[in-house]
Amino acid sequence: MELLSERNTKQLGSSRGLNLPWSPIRSLMPYAREAKSKGVEILHLNIGQPDIPTPPSALQKMKEDQVPIIEYGPSEGLESLRKVVADYYKNFSPSIDFEDVYVTTGASEAINFALMATCDLNDQVIIPEPFYANYLGFSTISGVEVVAVTSKIEDQFSLPKLSDFEAKITDKTKAILLCNPGNPTGQLYTKEDLESLMQLVVKKNLFLIVDEVYREFCYDGKFHSVLNFSGYEDHVIVIDSVSKVFSSCGARVGFLVTKNRRIQESVLKFAQMRLCPPYFGQKLSEYCYQGIGNYIQKAREEYVKRRELLYSGLQEIEGAIYYKPHAAFYNIVELPIDDSEKFCKWLLTDFRRDNCSVMMAPASGFYFNAEKGKGQVRIAYVLNSEKLKKAMNCLKYALKEYNS
Amino acid sequence: MELLSERNTKQLGSSRGLNLPWSPIRSLMPYAREAKSKGVEILHLNIGQPDIPTPPSALQKMKEDQVPIIEYGPSEGLESLRKVVADYYKNFSPSIDFEDVYVTTGASEAINFALMATCDLNDQVIIPEPFYANYLGFSTISGVEVVAVTSKIEDQFSLPKLSDFEAKITDKTKAILLCNPGNPTGQLYTKEDLESLMQLVVKKNLFLIVDEVYREFCYDGKFHSVLNFSGYEDHVIVIDSVSKVFSSCGARVGFLVTKNRRIQESVLKFAQMRLCPPYFGQKLSEYCYQGIGNYIQKAREEYVKRRELLYSGLQEIEGAIYYKPHAAFYNIVELPIDDSEKFCKWLLTDFRRDNCSVMMAPASGFYFNAEKGKGQVRIAYVLNSEKLKKAMNCLKYALKEYNS
Repeated sequence: MELLSERNTKQLGSSRGLNLPWSPIRSLMPYAREAKSKGVEILHLNIGQPDIPTPPSALQKMKEDQVPIIEYGPSEGLESLRKVVADYYKNFSPSIDFEDVYVTTGASEAINFALMATCDLNDQVIIPEPFYANYLGFSTISGVEVVAVTSKIEDQFSLPKLSDFEAKITDKTKAILLCNPGNPTGQLYTKEDLESLMQLVVKKNLFLIVDEVYREFCYDGKFHSVLNFSGYEDHVIVIDSVSKVFSSCGARVGFLVTKNRRIQESVLKFAQMRLCPPYFGQKLSEYCYQGIGNYIQKAREEYVKRRELLYSGLQEIEGAIYYKPHAAFYNIVELPIDDSEKFCKWLLTDFRRDNCSVMMAPASGFYFNAEKGKGQVRIAYVLNSEKLKKAMNCLKYALKEYNS
Repeated sequence: MELLSERNTKQLGSSRGLNLPWSPIRSLMPYAREAKSKGVEILHLNIGQPDIPTPPSALQKMKEDQVPIIEYGPSEGLESLRKVVADYYKNFSPSIDFEDVYVTTGASEAINFALMATCDLNDQVIIPEPFYANYLGFSTISGVEVVAVTSKIEDQFSLPKLSDFEAKITDKTKAILLCNPGNPTGQLYTKEDLESLMQLVVKKNLFLIVDEVYREFCYDGKFHSVLNFSGYEDHVIVIDSVSKVFSSCGARVGFLVTKNRRIQESVLKFAQMRLCPPYFGQKLSEYCYQGIGNYIQKAREEYVKRRELLYSGLQEIEGAIYYKPHAAFYNIVELPIDDSEKFCKWLLTDFRRDNCSVMMAPASGFYFNAEKGKGQVRIAYVLNSEKLKKAMNCLKYALKEYNS
């Protein structure tokens, strides 16, 4: 086959695939695996995988299902699930009908649909940084340009000033994308800040897409959903998910909620293209919402306890800049280090204390301009109390050794 | 809020969403619902939803699962599933390793990943028409241009001539996408035709993406997977799914199989972005492949029986142009009608025989140039024998009435 030689003269594979950055959360995995294979205990402060059991009663109910054929369901999601979700939303936002709720394959797909339904190729979306890294990935693959507005650790990552957003709006801007409560910052936006931003959004004829997957994890201050303001309905798209609330990340069930009819129409077409969301995950979700009870309250209490432990641990670290996060289970911390990627890698490859080390996410991957996160790390506090204490202690000693 | 008025002067929502065509398979649904609500029996020849039970032993095994937390799994899919799938492929293609198998959320996601990994924005993919309508949808949303090569009913939709493909290749062409066995045509490509096309693909430095989700449904002639030829590995991407084989459409589990390392790298990044495929569907799939036994053989026998019934039914229809499909469970038929969209709608809104009518998919949606499918419909033979007979009889009378 003489022609094979010709092949290497051209790139084989798209540049949008090859140039896409690796996930900042997962890119250190090989070093962690290597350490573990040598018997080192790695304490994971890097991922947002809750360790609280999925509601056992919902898992049990799934086993009673007698459906003989796992058929395609409706593209917009099972009506029974959409109805329990709409009932849940009605607690705080009475205008939401089940027809405004579209079930997606995780919040990931809802983000993708929201970006595609609001932005054409080469349009722009404004996102406060640091942001959930996959926002950048989904924007990139769908040909949407991300324009970052920087929020700062000294302001505890509160919403950037309205004038900062306004300065970035161009003819190509179609949407502003927020995460509230915030991953990776743990911030909670105030009612006043959200309302001002919505006024700007209406004035400039944009969409406000808000990822509210951590809505149930607020520890001080009150959570304000953008579904809960009247007069802006046509401009608001909310992203939600069962992953964190019900410790069901593997179910792959999320939601896109909007009252805008044109967005609904586009979302339904995108949804029809991929046929339907996963059946089993939808049934689990339905049972979870039905038996919601005090499950979330108990989970919240556990995270409050862990947040306190994290905060005490940070107080022991000389030279760290930190704050007490209000919500979610993440915290961005500025450490006295030269380069967080280098430090996080070193923790896995070199540092050991009692045959143990810590894994964290370097914050550079959460900024559009990676330089801004060079001294910062994201800590997820989803470890049980004992392990969390051990991890913070380990981190304290690691910093001393690293800087000496 | 004075500013709301400004809003309507600009389009709110992306044109890629609003301009996307509705699914040709699902667009007649409202008329079917309307008829059913009036007590009319609608016989569905329009959808590829198998009516054969999902393997009961696999559903049973799922109930024995005791996992307490439904966690994120690996982005590339559960290793246990990838291994049973690789074992299955080894039967005919010994070089496939489990690391070449990426689990996706249905074949839909695999198609999307394959297009994005091979094509950049404004690149071109060549597809023989008539084609599975969602190929066009996925291409559109990912900014890839579809270039159609027409296959013809008088050739039983066999692979178009090599020169037809060659004539369409430009600098922007990055891939050729086939469905084999074919939806919507039921065609099965020959070994010789596939090999010639692969030689062209290598010569022109392209990718050959083949959707083989109907691979197990071949009734005469032999199926040749493109994974089963040596020397072309770096250019081949196969799409597969458990949906049809195991009657598990709602599980949302598919596969992308390739030995090309660069494509693997891009696919892994796309996969990390959406975190992981659905846990429960993956477990079901794993149990299905493990207990594969004679399940597929029995399903195949059932479809052969139905194919014969369909064929006898077609022989009764004056003026129809048809052939006996070799594989899958679809058939494109040219009917003596002016406009298949009009006819298919009329069947639902006007025609009744013994309070019964038939739903079919107008073939225009399967052609890039809708005009070409104006006289054709796609018939899916996934109804049980009794209903299929009734449906074909109903169609015969409907044509007489429509044309009188």
